Amino acid sequence: MITTAKLNFITSNKNKLAEVRAILGNVVEIDSQAIEVPEIQGSIEEIAKEKARRAAEEIGGPVLTEDTALGFRALKGLPGAYIKHFLSALGHDGLNKMLDSFEDRSAEAVCTFAFCRGPGEEPILFQGRTEGVIVRPRGPLSFGWDPIFEHNGMTYAEMDKEQKNRVSHRYKALVKLKQWLEEGHLYLDSAGFYPGGNPRTVALYIIILLTIELHNYLFVKSFARFLCQDAEYFRI
Amino acid sequence: MITTAKLNFITSNKNKLAEVRAILGNVVEIDSQAIEVPEIQGSIEEIAKEKARRAAEEIGGPVLTEDTALGFRALKGLPGAYIKHFLSALGHDGLNKMLDSFEDRSAEAVCTFAFCRGPGEEPILFQGRTEGVIVRPRGPLSFGWDPIFEHNGMTYAEMDKEQKNRVSHRYKALVKLKQWLEEGHLYLDSAGFYPGGNPRTVALYIIILLTIELHNYLFVKSFARFLCQDAEYFRI
Repeated sequence: MITTAKLNFITSNKNKLAEVRAILGNVVEIDSQAIEVPEIQGSIEEIAKEKARRAAEEIGGPVLTEDTALGFRALKGLPGAYIKHFLSALGHDGLNKMLDSFEDRSAEAVCTFAFCRGPGEEPILFQGRTEGVIVRPRGPLSFGWDPIFEHNGMTYAEMDKEQKNRVSHRYKALVKLKQWLEEGHLYLDSAGFYPGGNPRTVALYIIILLTIELHNYLFVKSFARFLCQDAEYFRI
Repeated sequence: MITTAKLNFITSNKNKLAEVRAILGNVVEIDSQAIEVPEIQGSIEEIAKEKARRAAEEIGGPVLTEDTALGFRALKGLPGAYIKHFLSALGHDGLNKMLDSFEDRSAEAVCTFAFCRGPGEEPILFQGRTEGVIVRPRGPLSFGWDPIFEHNGMTYAEMDKEQKNRVSHRYKALVKLKQWLEEGHLYLDSAGFYPGGNPRTVALYIIILLTIELHNYLFVKSFARFLCQDAEYFRI
């Protein structure tokens, strides 16, 4: 953890950038890139991985992407990843009306951050999920479907920032990502110390590990001798 | 129209292949390839073009792809291109129920064939559209959403092949494609006679055209002289 790595967060949404910086800012430097990456159709995970893969190829380096899905239980998890198309076409009222003929108005909000180390690398996902209910809009109408997603009696739009952070799908995903970053994975990576890294650095890593192991073994052996003065018993 | 060109139809659906072969078989040879091309999110046209582009890149030659969309007017054209995900998740009953709280049950079926000449080429689209209404399933349940799409009092599933061909979105698109093929575009292409073709063949094409024009001019001139014997009047 000697160098500070940079994460290229692929977004054109300033609110999201601010939120990510607020939470991860003291762990890693967040740069933003507003490149256009076409999203595929598929499961939430497939969509997130493919987006990160393509973004990494486009900018030729490590990237972080974010995807938000809102699945209605009555619609077996749909619109899910396609929620943005449905929201922009139908609005809050249309989304509500789509559920009016169903008993079940429960929904799940899913946030998926995908980190891809670079072109050709397999992305790693960090997901947060929050259960809720779809309701008629309440609270400020400015941010996406926040006014119609109710969790514990309040819509996302009615919550203040702190309240929302305690429960939101995005915050949960960011906490997982933060933890992973704090474990140093990003830095290990930048030295190539991960499976799939440069074979030379992996070999070096193994040699260092073996040296430490040998050191430990010799230390334990001599320490045991020192403690017990019974060389026969401890000739391990 | 000396050589017979081949079209690689990208499909794993034997019914669709048979339908395309039945209609285009006497114009062009249809080969089928069942490669997997991820579909993007976007408008019907964007999705169709991107799929054809990627398929052409994958197989390194000319391809034909097909996309079917079913848009509900009450949902502003959605699910549209995402209909397959909605059908497989919700079934005929779920799709109906989604519309139960809306007055308007009208729908539009859209078939889009995309032809891409090869890697890096811009795909050409052939679209057919058919208006209908979403109803409780009637007729054989075997083919997609055919049992719930009613046109002129009958569902697609209730129609026999000939009746369906007269009205279906796919047939209309195929007719446009067939017409285009019969105009010889595919063959002109295989000789490079299209804008964006090999500059040498384009130049040759222009020279041939000019020669024909000159020939016509000389012929008309002498023919006019022959008819009227009035050289002064016809010195064009």
